[in-house]
Amino acid sequence: MSSTRAAVELSRAYLLLNHGPTTLVSSAHGDRRNVMAAAWAMPIDLRPPKIGVVIAQDTYTRELVDASGELVLNLPTRSMVDVTYAVGSSSGRDGDKFAAHHLATSAASKVKAPLIEGCVGWLECRVIAEPHLAQAYDLFICEVVAAWADTRVWNGRTWDFEKHDELRTIHHLAKGEFVASGERLKASK
Amino acid sequence: MSSTRAAVELSRAYLLLNHGPTTLVSSAHGDRRNVMAAAWAMPIDLRPPKIGVVIAQDTYTRELVDASGELVLNLPTRSMVDVTYAVGSSSGRDGDKFAAHHLATSAASKVKAPLIEGCVGWLECRVIAEPHLAQAYDLFICEVVAAWADTRVWNGRTWDFEKHDELRTIHHLAKGEFVASGERLKASK
Repeated sequence: MSSTRAAVELSRAYLLLNHGPTTLVSSAHGDRRNVMAAAWAMPIDLRPPKIGVVIAQDTYTRELVDASGELVLNLPTRSMVDVTYAVGSSSGRDGDKFAAHHLATSAASKVKAPLIEGCVGWLECRVIAEPHLAQAYDLFICEVVAAWADTRVWNGRTWDFEKHDELRTIHHLAKGEFVASGERLKASK
Repeated sequence: MSSTRAAVELSRAYLLLNHGPTTLVSSAHGDRRNVMAAAWAMPIDLRPPKIGVVIAQDTYTRELVDASGELVLNLPTRSMVDVTYAVGSSSGRDGDKFAAHHLATSAASKVKAPLIEGCVGWLECRVIAEPHLAQAYDLFICEVVAAWADTRVWNGRTWDFEKHDELRTIHHLAKGEFVASGERLKASK
């Protein structure tokens, strides 16, 4: 695993996702695994930390998440724009997307879904059973059970991308167009 | 109302929010109105367009949204960082926040909650009754019934902030620190 990956205390895990970056959802069940892109992910609670993420009904990821009750939200960087869009535009049913896109992984600590190397944030999640939500809205609510961040851009309490432009998180606008997490601004009060 | 505000067709309304910007939630019921900041808002469906937003249980906004079943998600700009943080750090029960922060408004088309001037995107929303979600997670699912964007930065199909730095949307990191929606990136495939 990356030598700059450090644990994030669970009380701060929501801060990894607070600015609305696009995520890669990794999943695993038995000997099957998958990765897809998800722009529709956000924190929904602080203690214990919970996130919401939309996973469409007919996807391979949905099949693996339904079977395992687990997933990881990985935060890709601007260096990963191409692969983020590519894994969001193909299905793992057609072949292993990690191999096809040369995505290296390492083991998570609490779930079987892998952590994707090259990302800068990782939230290991367990699905909270809400069958109506999944059925009606493809929406999954998960508890974050472990979190990690790259210390080159995570200072222990917030993101700071100023010194590592290539490690900025990304935000999907539409059809392969993204914006990077940009200039840092501070409210005066 | 702003002369650069144009209607966004409902099939594209989710694109206003796809990149994960922080929002201002405006609400109204009877002669009462309020505004709060919400970083935890995202699209959850395309047709009809739906969004999810977290509104904490003890807030004045929650009281007005529960009473009216309506809200507007307004997208503030980098020029509005101070006011975004300020309205997220005070309660409308202590006095009208629009007046206190000199926020001008105009009438929405389908809901009574106002549109906030100076913002660049507006989603008029009606709450879909999901009492369990509100109770357990403070999470509201809403249908978007009308949407608007500022044509200086919305080209009809996506955001383009390159020519108007001051109109970039913003993303809350933590405690009054934000990043602007940054450099535009395009996936190669």
